[in-house]
Amino acid sequence: MEESRELDEFKSLEELIIPPRTLMGPGPVDVDPRVLAAMALPLLSHLDPDFTRIMDEVMDMLRRVFMTKNRFTAAISATGHGGMEAALLNVVEPGETIIVGVCGLFGERLAEIAERVGARVVRVEGEWGKPVDPYDIKKAIDDNPGAKLVAVIHGETSTGVLQPLDDIIKVAHDRGVLVLVDTVVTLGGCEVNVDGWGIDICYSGSQKCISAPPGLAPLTISDRVADVIKGRRNKVRSWYFDLGKIFDYWGQERFYHHTAPISLVYALREALRLLLTEGLEHSWKRHARHGRALLLGLDAMDLHSPVDPAYRIPQLVVIRVPEHIDEARVRRALVERCGIEIAGGLGKLKGQVWRIGLLGYSAQKKNVLTLLMALEQILREEGHRFEPGAGIEAALRVYAEKH
Amino acid sequence: MEESRELDEFKSLEELIIPPRTLMGPGPVDVDPRVLAAMALPLLSHLDPDFTRIMDEVMDMLRRVFMTKNRFTAAISATGHGGMEAALLNVVEPGETIIVGVCGLFGERLAEIAERVGARVVRVEGEWGKPVDPYDIKKAIDDNPGAKLVAVIHGETSTGVLQPLDDIIKVAHDRGVLVLVDTVVTLGGCEVNVDGWGIDICYSGSQKCISAPPGLAPLTISDRVADVIKGRRNKVRSWYFDLGKIFDYWGQERFYHHTAPISLVYALREALRLLLTEGLEHSWKRHARHGRALLLGLDAMDLHSPVDPAYRIPQLVVIRVPEHIDEARVRRALVERCGIEIAGGLGKLKGQVWRIGLLGYSAQKKNVLTLLMALEQILREEGHRFEPGAGIEAALRVYAEKH
Repeated sequence: MEESRELDEFKSLEELIIPPRTLMGPGPVDVDPRVLAAMALPLLSHLDPDFTRIMDEVMDMLRRVFMTKNRFTAAISATGHGGMEAALLNVVEPGETIIVGVCGLFGERLAEIAERVGARVVRVEGEWGKPVDPYDIKKAIDDNPGAKLVAVIHGETSTGVLQPLDDIIKVAHDRGVLVLVDTVVTLGGCEVNVDGWGIDICYSGSQKCISAPPGLAPLTISDRVADVIKGRRNKVRSWYFDLGKIFDYWGQERFYHHTAPISLVYALREALRLLLTEGLEHSWKRHARHGRALLLGLDAMDLHSPVDPAYRIPQLVVIRVPEHIDEARVRRALVERCGIEIAGGLGKLKGQVWRIGLLGYSAQKKNVLTLLMALEQILREEGHRFEPGAGIEAALRVYAEKH
Repeated sequence: MEESRELDEFKSLEELIIPPRTLMGPGPVDVDPRVLAAMALPLLSHLDPDFTRIMDEVMDMLRRVFMTKNRFTAAISATGHGGMEAALLNVVEPGETIIVGVCGLFGERLAEIAERVGARVVRVEGEWGKPVDPYDIKKAIDDNPGAKLVAVIHGETSTGVLQPLDDIIKVAHDRGVLVLVDTVVTLGGCEVNVDGWGIDICYSGSQKCISAPPGLAPLTISDRVADVIKGRRNKVRSWYFDLGKIFDYWGQERFYHHTAPISLVYALREALRLLLTEGLEHSWKRHARHGRALLLGLDAMDLHSPVDPAYRIPQLVVIRVPEHIDEARVRRALVERCGIEIAGGLGKLKGQVWRIGLLGYSAQKKNVLTLLMALEQILREEGHRFEPGAGIEAALRVYAEKH
């Protein structure tokens, strides 16, 4: 500005300085520098045709990533939890019954939010660390005639469990019940096939395997769900998360609903562009490969996943921490010495596990090998015994495999 | 990534290219390049102490900008509408009565959202283009004993009207009724004195006079309101907007609630830092000065504000478009020739007014003068008659004044 500045009583803060980090938790994760650069482009306004064209491109790319032809595919202006809330708020009317699979913190969250939006919630509990049993879902549907929706978490980031979906979707659809699937940690990192599997409502977060900054929740609903929403007896109990109004903005109507977070949409566009340029299947393979290298490396250091191999999220390695190790001290040492961040346990698993994500741009060979080498030293200091060098060797064997 | 890339069937989009714009609508507005640079810094995770320290700094600076000592002052992870919804959802329980001042689109929005969250809404209507009459508010309170809250818009961006607040706050407080004020377009651009005026609940948006990108809604509540929320009989009907949980994350508890939009928090910190380094009062004066220069310039070109001078938002100039002018064609020409974006009317004022914002980084002399010079030519082509050069001269006279 042209005027001279005066300081008032405010003692000016320093410019922002961010310490260097390698983010290997369950998200947010590192972001390709090209995504950061796209985010820093100057703003357009939310109804500028040059911006709404970008929204169209984002919708088109999200359809490819969700593997769907759903017209109603966009990004909600909120984090993954906002996507969860938007999905439940719009589909379920107060007093309607929904069945929620709960075997981890995010299943709990689904049930909690469903209750808050006024649903009658039937919880199908599973053990933390195991998937929900499709038989229990079937029983809950049969015991609750008129249930509208079954809601489950595809990748439960609190436990590292990947929920098999085919039987659940089949039993639900056979009985005319809709299926909602939370793919916050899986979308882009392993197969999520909305149309192929018949998911009715699906949402994710921008900050996991899509590898954009947090703040947007990709969401897709089938035409059938759109009709259910259109036929509601009551207005959605939220303006901000009203999908009818949100799609009137993202769609060709372009009605003003709220001011989109322009910069985050730029970032999401660039992240999706990079993901699809890599190729979706290639991305799944990349995530699986680095996850496997890390898992086998840790295994060779006598650190093991508590999850049945059949149900592991490939890109999120969960390790049961041996009792003789101070898990928080190890995590602190990783940050302080190498700038590497991994996560501890949540809820019932607090203090018992590490959760190591290889998501999006963080799914890199250099990250896997650096972490293994850093742990080699730090764990020895903790008195943990294992064959020296065995971890890195096991990982390198994975990388030496043909692919 | 180290692997070779394959293209699948996806025809890769080009890198993102943003056409150059000068944003002179009611927001989003141009952002200082230092804010864009801060936003592009690498991510930290949402519970990293280096990030939560940034949250503390943002809270502290927001208190200065809101002019409050309120402990519960933070930024909601949503746009301004999300702030509106969070404020109403938490304070009002289903069936409780709230009084809403409505004399423009955003007052309508307040009433609509209040109804959706289950309130019994008493609308105090005013003419679009005038403020709400405090006498009508008083009458509504007296007619509705037990009303919990009066909600008004400080700067109604659909009409350009600045609502005087002192009488409204006095009549409400005399009767034990809480006051909610929407300061989306005013905060940082003209005086908003939460503690001095006695506002109980106040929120704004990041993308107006604070001049950060959209996506965050600064919000502050008094301790009294915090107690009201704590004493609710029912859970808040939203998880995402549950202020108790949001403040448990922003506060020293640091409970995980959702993943904050890290990059937007960086940007907000930098925007607040620049605003407070300039000085809050200096910023108000800057906004007023450029608004006045533009207003007098347009006046000299026979373009006038329909708003009574006593009730104008200084930094948002609203002009009644003369009937012989095609208002949309003028706006298009401004974008196509000069990259300048101004806004048209909303709701009842669609097609009748221009709304020209001098908000945040957009409040610059070069913007005022460029717009006046561009309009000089474009309006002549529209057949609008005025004294050549009178607009720019009037504005330059304002800039020649001592300040």
